[in-house]
Amino acid sequence: MNHEIDLKNYSLRTDLTIDSIESSNSLKGVYQQINKVDNITITDVELFKNNALDKKEGYYITIEFDDVTDKDNYNKVNKVLTNEISKLLQKINIKEDDTCLIVGLGNEKSTPDALGPQVVNQSLVTNHIYEIGRLSSGFRRVCAISPGVKGQTGIETSIIIKSVVEKIKPDFVIVIDSLASQSIERVNKTIQITNTGIHPGSGIGNSRREISKEVLNIPVIAIGIPTVVDATVIVADTINYMYKHYAFMKEYQHKPSSKLTFNNVNYLNKNIKFNPTDKKQLLGLIGMLDEEEVKKLISEVLTPIGYNMMVTPKEVDFVIDKLSSLIALSLNQVLHKNFRQ
Amino acid sequence: MNHEIDLKNYSLRTDLTIDSIESSNSLKGVYQQINKVDNITITDVELFKNNALDKKEGYYITIEFDDVTDKDNYNKVNKVLTNEISKLLQKINIKEDDTCLIVGLGNEKSTPDALGPQVVNQSLVTNHIYEIGRLSSGFRRVCAISPGVKGQTGIETSIIIKSVVEKIKPDFVIVIDSLASQSIERVNKTIQITNTGIHPGSGIGNSRREISKEVLNIPVIAIGIPTVVDATVIVADTINYMYKHYAFMKEYQHKPSSKLTFNNVNYLNKNIKFNPTDKKQLLGLIGMLDEEEVKKLISEVLTPIGYNMMVTPKEVDFVIDKLSSLIALSLNQVLHKNFRQ
Amino acid sequence: MNHEIDLKNYSLRTDLTIDSIESSNSLKGVYQQINKVDNITITDVELFKNNALDKKEGYYITIEFDDVTDKDNYNKVNKVLTNEISKLLQKINIKEDDTCLIVGLGNEKSTPDALGPQVVNQSLVTNHIYEIGRLSSGFRRVCAISPGVKGQTGIETSIIIKSVVEKIKPDFVIVIDSLASQSIERVNKTIQITNTGIHPGSGIGNSRREISKEVLNIPVIAIGIPTVVDATVIVADTINYMYKHYAFMKEYQHKPSSKLTFNNVNYLNKNIKFNPTDKKQLLGLIGMLDEEEVKKLISEVLTPIGYNMMVTPKEVDFVIDKLSSLIALSLNQVLHKNFRQ
Amino acid sequence: MNHEIDLKNYSLRTDLTIDSIESSNSLKGVYQQINKVDNITITDVELFKNNALDKKEGYYITIEFDDVTDKDNYNKVNKVLTNEISKLLQKINIKEDDTCLIVGLGNEKSTPDALGPQVVNQSLVTNHIYEIGRLSSGFRRVCAISPGVKGQTGIETSIIIKSVVEKIKPDFVIVIDSLASQSIERVNKTIQITNTGIHPGSGIGNSRREISKEVLNIPVIAIGIPTVVDATVIVADTINYMYKHYAFMKEYQHKPSSKLTFNNVNYLNKNIKFNPTDKKQLLGLIGMLDEEEVKKLISEVLTPIGYNMMVTPKEVDFVIDKLSSLIALSLNQVLHKNFRQ
Repeated sequence: MNHEIDLKNYSLRTDLTIDSIESSNSLKGVYQQINKVDNITITDVELFKNNALDKKEGYYITIEFDDVTDKDNYNKVNKVLTNEISKLLQKINIKEDDTCLIVGLGNEKSTPDALGPQVVNQSLVTNHIYEIGRLSSGFRRVCAISPGVKGQTGIETSIIIKSVVEKIKPDFVIVIDSLASQSIERVNKTIQITNTGIHPGSGIGNSRREISKEVLNIPVIAIGIPTVVDATVIVADTINYMYKHYAFMKEYQHKPSSKLTFNNVNYLNKNIKFNPTDKKQLLGLIGMLDEEEVKKLISEVLTPIGYNMMVTPKEVDFVIDKLSSLIALSLNQVLHKNFRQ
Repeated sequence: MNHEIDLKNYSLRTDLTIDSIESSNSLKGVYQQINKVDNITITDVELFKNNALDKKEGYYITIEFDDVTDKDNYNKVNKVLTNEISKLLQKINIKEDDTCLIVGLGNEKSTPDALGPQVVNQSLVTNHIYEIGRLSSGFRRVCAISPGVKGQTGIETSIIIKSVVEKIKPDFVIVIDSLASQSIERVNKTIQITNTGIHPGSGIGNSRREISKEVLNIPVIAIGIPTVVDATVIVADTINYMYKHYAFMKEYQHKPSSKLTFNNVNYLNKNIKFNPTDKKQLLGLIGMLDEEEVKKLISEVLTPIGYNMMVTPKEVDFVIDKLSSLIALSLNQVLHKNFRQ
Repeated sequence: MNHEIDLKNYSLRTDLTIDSIESSNSLKGVYQQINKVDNITITDVELFKNNALDKKEGYYITIEFDDVTDKDNYNKVNKVLTNEISKLLQKINIKEDDTCLIVGLGNEKSTPDALGPQVVNQSLVTNHIYEIGRLSSGFRRVCAISPGVKGQTGIETSIIIKSVVEKIKPDFVIVIDSLASQSIERVNKTIQITNTGIHPGSGIGNSRREISKEVLNIPVIAIGIPTVVDATVIVADTINYMYKHYAFMKEYQHKPSSKLTFNNVNYLNKNIKFNPTDKKQLLGLIGMLDEEEVKKLISEVLTPIGYNMMVTPKEVDFVIDKLSSLIALSLNQVLHKNFRQ
Repeated sequence: MNHEIDLKNYSLRTDLTIDSIESSNSLKGVYQQINKVDNITITDVELFKNNALDKKEGYYITIEFDDVTDKDNYNKVNKVLTNEISKLLQKINIKEDDTCLIVGLGNEKSTPDALGPQVVNQSLVTNHIYEIGRLSSGFRRVCAISPGVKGQTGIETSIIIKSVVEKIKPDFVIVIDSLASQSIERVNKTIQITNTGIHPGSGIGNSRREISKEVLNIPVIAIGIPTVVDATVIVADTINYMYKHYAFMKEYQHKPSSKLTFNNVNYLNKNIKFNPTDKKQLLGLIGMLDEEEVKKLISEVLTPIGYNMMVTPKEVDFVIDKLSSLIALSLNQVLHKNFRQ
């Protein structure tokens, strides 16, 4: 039924700005500030026009955390997330009584893509109560939709959103989406908040047209969590790990401390420098390609097989439950004064 | 969270036209024809302007069947349903290549109200394939949305539909909805198809504004199945049964055949006449009220308690699965020539 | 598929001991103490041998609360529930390191019956970690099963539990179950905890054999929440309300304060006395029957129709989610010292 | 919550016997016969004692098909599957009225692991009807359980099954399980039926103890479908594809037909021979390892990161629905004469 999927737009781009910063050689037009709170890393990025990352100008806040299935951690991330979304809303002049439309992107029937609809299900929606004149003060007017995905509806998602926005006329939109990550370590452990909206090719291989202020004429805040890794990425990462592992073992294996350090998975350490000759020796011609070229080669090989694979953690259903409840809770606190404390 | 629900519009109206025909004294402006195929009853009703039922003019086809969880029955109902929808589309001049928007009304999270969204999930959607120029002949352009319910979205459902229809410009709309029934015996055993759309107050106590040709400017076919009975109805029905049971037992209990006939639940037999004095004797003042008055009294008593109860069969989850698959299969066959073979 | 359901065991018994106390004329062998904390009523009952309720001797703690979908209330009920279960475990000499088997009764596919399995899904299970020698102190050995229902498995549920208990040899069992209530007002608003286990006929019309210390040879704590009302009950309650409403209106309708008092739904007020003559006048012969007789009559009439109906609140899916998370949270706190604070 | 998962038993073994046959150098003790029906390949394998594959003696039937989401294909595979299970039951002397216990292994909450429980949900269970003496002839006594997974229950799954078998005393067991595949192409496109049961390490990285005739003392038929690929496998496959792609391009790229042949994804063609020097040149030291060594290296690198990843097709939820309905339908036809029509 879904066989007509176009694999051409299987790009190697990442949805996470901090991925791009890490792999970019220049930081022209990039302002970046990093804070740590309770083992949670908050990276505040502002991109200016014509930045080196070739990304849209605007704010990108990235929250990195460990394990949201742990109760304490959950509460800490909730606090940080509520705070960061509130600050962003202030920066872009959203007022306490502006009407909000929450949009949950993604396919509720496919677990790693269900984040958006699950957040919508748990959001405190008040617009219909306002309309009958019974909304208490301390609550903002909020509506919420899950427009489905193109494969289910046959309609470009951005068009459904645009048509609803034009009728309902909210003051701003908050879009929730599952992202694809460029690195295994970030899956389900990173939240990105931005005022630049959602751009084509985001998500699990489904191209969607832009959802942004440019298109909708009102501010669009996008909140995204990488929940899958493309098969291409996991292959590329592993080839990389193999080479670093090889290089590391070659260097350290006769030293007394090697066993211990190996336990620390040193090939994940970004500061260790490796020797290009090792790479060539281990990986032959592939070792001479740079990272982007390896990914292109992998993609070239995997795409025609058409297996349309995604890589997720085994406990994905459980984690998506926690993450959606976390975002919904934070949104309810941000949007409704009376929901706080 | 959902406490602001307005109970005032708790009306006693039924969504099924054959319910209305049964309880109406006049059949002015009502054309009715009944066919039986394989234990399936098909009631073809045409209502003309100013009909005695005070319902909108148009076609109302009602299919009554026994048990759709039985494989054979399922196949028979599927055949009848496909045939009846096709005939209605022809009657109202829908062409083989007209674009269709399927709308699944209701709340996917509440089982008896999930019929519409579940049909959408199983519909063969093709609009996006058409748009990239790859739709084979034999398939119609179809898109499908599940707009959610006002309690989830904060938005009047009819407004979401109207906004999408205006952007997408389909040639006709098919709306799928769960209905409330006026009689326990019809729950999950009746399908109503009509070209008059959906009207306020339909469904499980949620008032929704009209979804019809008058509002959307294109034909709207509504397919509905009663999946719940209002608490008011079950109480009224039972009081009625008690009285009939009492009257029947009084008359027949000393006759030799009484045990056998009792097994046939004679108080469900609509042709047996009962004596009003019996009713008064058994039920006192309540026995002197007519059916509508009893229901009003029950409603008056139940409403302020606000328990917002629904009555469903215990196996509702299983039956809704079957019914949604049945409607989706029939729709796919009706809409796509190549799906019929 | 499920047509062979035996309706004979459609009894009128209630699963809630406080229901029985209310409708009993004698309190012989019944010790009862009522506390109120934060709008939560805790009724502590001890039944002695040969008590007037004809129920098994043991402890029955009933927690009545308002609306668990409200965050504050949720937290308050959680605190009370954790406290009451802990006290009961102490009373019956369960030690901090005794091994627990949690059993979630019911059918996960039928929402109002899914409470037990949903609690199991959210319970912190540790037995397998203990077995590989890695359980931290502060955590108890806990295992958990959802044995399904007889209609799904073909096996008496109590037999599956007994066979697992004999192999695993836990020190005590905690059984979670959905109950049927005798009054609409208690649905989803009452938790009963007892050390007497589960008895035949409990739940949604499915007879299950006893699950108790007598059968399993280890203590069995049962935690139950009424999630449905039998159709019989709602009819009987409504007839009752109608009569009281009638009686009340007759008495008060010409007094100046009547409108106000009517808003308070006075027919729910248990302290108002009614006149038997009124009842006869309003309800005829039915008015002369006592409550149990009316229910028997209703049951007699409804059973052969076989519609096997249940009555639930419309928002049942949402409420069951909250209630199962509440019980699971409380159990995790009770069972694992390290999960508290 | 599930952090204590032991990754040591992350073996490279495959659950599919035809995978082992393909990668084995010797076919000692292996009898194999291949049939093609309607594009469906049926591989009938009998393994004798001390076979070269080091697998348990017994029958292994493998059905390979294309796309079960296509209606025609679904029906064809259903016919083949029903036929093959029936033949196996006859071979091992299961009689028409022997009692069957169906066991659905796996975690219903994790989509690719939900195959077993979903089959149980759709199986026609009759044991409880037999017990009340109302089972029509033409129906076999069948019971069914979904014992859950160790991470949910804390109990070794094989122990739950053994305890139920000892109480219920069925004549034979049919176990349904999700398998891990060694090749991307087989995921959701292969069914394996065997009379040798289930062995440790099967499934999605969860070690479960053996479920077999040796343990349960009655015949155990296992029906498995590979629904995931280990991350290790996808990396190894891709490295392999890259090398073959490279070798193929080097050879054919200047020939006129190359463009066409590339579309056929020639690197999947098992008959094309490749030159070891090419491999070394492309892949360096890794090119000199054999396939098993590469996988071990990948596993060594991926395991300590602990990301516990699985690789599934993006439409996994939809496909598992179809596959479970397919197996349940076939089982119902095999087990109940009256279900065949």
